[in-house]
Amino acid sequence: MDYQAILHEIADEIVPFLESGRVADYIPALASVDPRQFGMSLTLFDGTHYSVGDADKRFSIQSISKLFTFTLALKFTGRDLYRRVGREPSGNPFNSLVQLEYEQGIPRNPFINAGAIVITDVLLSHYGDHDRMLNALLEFIRAIADDMSVDYSRTVAASEMEHGFRNRALANLMKSFGNIDNDVLEVVQNYFNHCAIEMSTAMLSRSMLYLANHGVDPINGREYITPSQAKRINAVMLTCGHYDASGDFAFHVGLPGKSGVGGGIVAVVPKVMGIAVWSPGLNAQGNSLVGTLALERFTSKTGLSIF
Amino acid sequence: MDYQAILHEIADEIVPFLESGRVADYIPALASVDPRQFGMSLTLFDGTHYSVGDADKRFSIQSISKLFTFTLALKFTGRDLYRRVGREPSGNPFNSLVQLEYEQGIPRNPFINAGAIVITDVLLSHYGDHDRMLNALLEFIRAIADDMSVDYSRTVAASEMEHGFRNRALANLMKSFGNIDNDVLEVVQNYFNHCAIEMSTAMLSRSMLYLANHGVDPINGREYITPSQAKRINAVMLTCGHYDASGDFAFHVGLPGKSGVGGGIVAVVPKVMGIAVWSPGLNAQGNSLVGTLALERFTSKTGLSIF
Amino acid sequence: MDYQAILHEIADEIVPFLESGRVADYIPALASVDPRQFGMSLTLFDGTHYSVGDADKRFSIQSISKLFTFTLALKFTGRDLYRRVGREPSGNPFNSLVQLEYEQGIPRNPFINAGAIVITDVLLSHYGDHDRMLNALLEFIRAIADDMSVDYSRTVAASEMEHGFRNRALANLMKSFGNIDNDVLEVVQNYFNHCAIEMSTAMLSRSMLYLANHGVDPINGREYITPSQAKRINAVMLTCGHYDASGDFAFHVGLPGKSGVGGGIVAVVPKVMGIAVWSPGLNAQGNSLVGTLALERFTSKTGLSIF
Amino acid sequence: MDYQAILHEIADEIVPFLESGRVADYIPALASVDPRQFGMSLTLFDGTHYSVGDADKRFSIQSISKLFTFTLALKFTGRDLYRRVGREPSGNPFNSLVQLEYEQGIPRNPFINAGAIVITDVLLSHYGDHDRMLNALLEFIRAIADDMSVDYSRTVAASEMEHGFRNRALANLMKSFGNIDNDVLEVVQNYFNHCAIEMSTAMLSRSMLYLANHGVDPINGREYITPSQAKRINAVMLTCGHYDASGDFAFHVGLPGKSGVGGGIVAVVPKVMGIAVWSPGLNAQGNSLVGTLALERFTSKTGLSIF
Repeated sequence: MDYQAILHEIADEIVPFLESGRVADYIPALASVDPRQFGMSLTLFDGTHYSVGDADKRFSIQSISKLFTFTLALKFTGRDLYRRVGREPSGNPFNSLVQLEYEQGIPRNPFINAGAIVITDVLLSHYGDHDRMLNALLEFIRAIADDMSVDYSRTVAASEMEHGFRNRALANLMKSFGNIDNDVLEVVQNYFNHCAIEMSTAMLSRSMLYLANHGVDPINGREYITPSQAKRINAVMLTCGHYDASGDFAFHVGLPGKSGVGGGIVAVVPKVMGIAVWSPGLNAQGNSLVGTLALERFTSKTGLSIF
Repeated sequence: MDYQAILHEIADEIVPFLESGRVADYIPALASVDPRQFGMSLTLFDGTHYSVGDADKRFSIQSISKLFTFTLALKFTGRDLYRRVGREPSGNPFNSLVQLEYEQGIPRNPFINAGAIVITDVLLSHYGDHDRMLNALLEFIRAIADDMSVDYSRTVAASEMEHGFRNRALANLMKSFGNIDNDVLEVVQNYFNHCAIEMSTAMLSRSMLYLANHGVDPINGREYITPSQAKRINAVMLTCGHYDASGDFAFHVGLPGKSGVGGGIVAVVPKVMGIAVWSPGLNAQGNSLVGTLALERFTSKTGLSIF
Repeated sequence: MDYQAILHEIADEIVPFLESGRVADYIPALASVDPRQFGMSLTLFDGTHYSVGDADKRFSIQSISKLFTFTLALKFTGRDLYRRVGREPSGNPFNSLVQLEYEQGIPRNPFINAGAIVITDVLLSHYGDHDRMLNALLEFIRAIADDMSVDYSRTVAASEMEHGFRNRALANLMKSFGNIDNDVLEVVQNYFNHCAIEMSTAMLSRSMLYLANHGVDPINGREYITPSQAKRINAVMLTCGHYDASGDFAFHVGLPGKSGVGGGIVAVVPKVMGIAVWSPGLNAQGNSLVGTLALERFTSKTGLSIF
Repeated sequence: MDYQAILHEIADEIVPFLESGRVADYIPALASVDPRQFGMSLTLFDGTHYSVGDADKRFSIQSISKLFTFTLALKFTGRDLYRRVGREPSGNPFNSLVQLEYEQGIPRNPFINAGAIVITDVLLSHYGDHDRMLNALLEFIRAIADDMSVDYSRTVAASEMEHGFRNRALANLMKSFGNIDNDVLEVVQNYFNHCAIEMSTAMLSRSMLYLANHGVDPINGREYITPSQAKRINAVMLTCGHYDASGDFAFHVGLPGKSGVGGGIVAVVPKVMGIAVWSPGLNAQGNSLVGTLALERFTSKTGLSIF
């Protein structure tokens, strides 16, 4: 298949929609991003790489980081992790405290904020302190992205911390149920650091290969997680990766994927490739409007839906 | 792959769990079923058929019928259907009225009871009367199962009607929001008739082929729905097919599937085969305990997970 | 105190607000009422009666009937009644199924629709059939109102039945939890018959005397309920009599009261008098806008608040 | 009426129930209190004082402090206060975040924790800093209790702060909705300081006189709030003073009252007296079991219910 031609087609087709979305504006650092940007990248198992548009521009990966922290926590904790965080869709239109209260402080899955905060707490306990944890996470992401320059934005992290009262509410509520071991503010600060990691679609599509290939990097052969763990992360991405639009994404795109409020979306074609797309304007559900559209076109044109 | 040998292995491995589940007991007709039964069937695209255990015994398909009514409604209504029923997971541990009330009578998806009741209403309006609708549904199922003897149990339907007050509550609540067009009791009666259809795993695995093959029966070439519709039904099965254990099923089994409280589960391996399994004992989430286990073993042994 | 003068003052003061409310329009029979009407009546323990405006015009008492059915049910059932219906405020902005589902089909109090439907079921079981129950209720109301002409509107009852799908949903949900003994449609029909009773403020203020006087009619000495029961009905009126505006009514008016969607409100000054007011325009909480205002003026002018 | 004799009767009658309740154990400082203690006090408008049992023993007033902070905030802010906190019962069995989320960070009333935290924020803004606010509150309580020795326990306040993660969650959630102006931790610390104030029933019954007498201390003539404000505080006490057992308290006791988890309850007989009772064992709703019983006996014996 001529993937490069397909990417060019998609880049042309999405132009009319570039200003239809709404850039995240809850912190100044995100609000100032130009909405007319678009990048998309594919990476095959042999390392072949296809890109279009702003594929080398770094953006705030935000909730895509939840995929990486979930991977690390699963690697070190194994099935015990599921005592503290579930793997069911949340079915709530907002990042809600309601379900968390009814379900006694156990978040529905690792991809809603509450779940990712628990995962951060698990990693903080595992690594012992803030710096070692952050370094370990960055090291892991640099390895799977095959790019040593991956880092996070101190500005974005600080800005999130300044405005993130709802996330503090989530963390305190879970602490009251005994589901946070470390200091609440430290956990939340770490969580925001992860969200502020910056990557390009080129890096991100490369970094999806271990998930597309059942836990093993197909290029260098490094084994990060077991095949069973990789498949299960993909399953959780499919059912929970887009908050309350996860069903819609499965329905329209038909691939495991994870979005971030910075406008990025990563996706996996099992046994075939990693994909990443970026465009900052969001749809009503908080996922990249043009990114979702581009992925939908991609699976329509290639027939690569898992269904 | 030696599917027959794999089925025999599975049939041996599940024996210790045959009495761990709990048979549905909300109506007498279901409560009296012997829990020690187990059947499993696979049907390939060339018609090759593998079975083990009680694969020819008919049981009450219950919510598996929602898959067939959803198919028919989608066929006749197209995308307009989604104005009246969503395609997101419900995220509720029970068949709840809560979400239905907050979301103004629009059910989350076609596989929760409220959604299937709306689908029944859509079909009733389309076919004009009760008899024509029931005949059309049975005719469709007989065609995809390639078995003219498929029918429903009047006893089970009557028993459901006698006890189904919660479903009447759902239907009345949706009527109050204007999302039911026909008479509430007539809609509910029809819904119960569908649930009371009886089939064997042999019939059911055959009947999944059109979904595995993007809308076209691979044996006789009949086209039931478009490729896009078939893939999207599979996506909804994956995200919503097992109520509040849908994430868990995706996680452990990794196939689009739909369960019924009678102990049946159907599943689809896209482009490969249809699967059905039956064992009446249910787990805590109301899905067949042994059936789920058997499917999990099946994808582990064959590597046929879509992830 | 010159009560007649106070009523005249109030009647003057409310004129500017007569068109600010919104007449209930969920059934045609109520929607056609002229909003510019206003009547108010007081009845003292010696039978002295003061009225102003349309005090002899009969209107649909709607939820005020819940006060009378609650009284009868309490009289015959005693404290056992509280196993089936609570006495706590509901704290929900709408006539909700949410709380009913979480609380297993036990309504919060006798004044929300679900509670009144349970009360109707209790009375239906007690009296054995529909006619005897309706006659007993009318007889009781005729006695306390001292007016043999009290009756209900068949038109309004039929219209409610035709549109009352949410109440059927409530009744079916409670039936599914085992909290309705009789046939659901029969219970709902009876409930609507009570709501369709028609009375004037003159009749209603007279009918409050037994509650103001601890269960005994102060004029003819008939004892309807015990002093303890009467005080407790007053307490439930104060905390739950105005749905989700009960706190507001207690705050502004400071008297036990019960409103109906027809625009009527009854209130009790313990040991002093019965009060009734009517004006069809409703405020945002579904209580008579002018009626609430008139009662607030009344307690301000007279100092008769219980606080 | 021989109030002293009535208090002695009650003190005898409650003995069998002294060990039926359960002492609050969420912080060590409260868990260690001896449950067999009981004190009760009445103060009339002329200063006559009746007491029985441990009426001079100081205990942690906990949520009774919400009455005093509400009074001060209302005094300084007037009706504007109700833009930030409601006056409706919450109808929730727990100190819930659910309603707070649905209602956009506006607490239902000043007596649930969320409401009292907003009130603390209002006072903190009014007084400018922590110390001045705490001094003003203590000064107000010392005045109404006519006892300069009233103070708070640093131990209890520190212990609350160490365990109060749910209250921090509430405060952060409200901050995220813009309904907390000051620093979250500072507001919560102040809130816990108020809860840790220690008083005896003798002091507390004296301190209720301004509410029983429409805002004016009947002994020294000092006017704290307007008559209308005093009546309205009483109305809010009646409808919301006992969390989700407020209806039950109104039903059984029939007086405006406010309870605390330390086992104290204050109540008001309008135009007659102030009452306080204390016994540390709590009932299932978190209110003093023996205290509630004692008040119920008191209104039965004296007929002083407002209904």
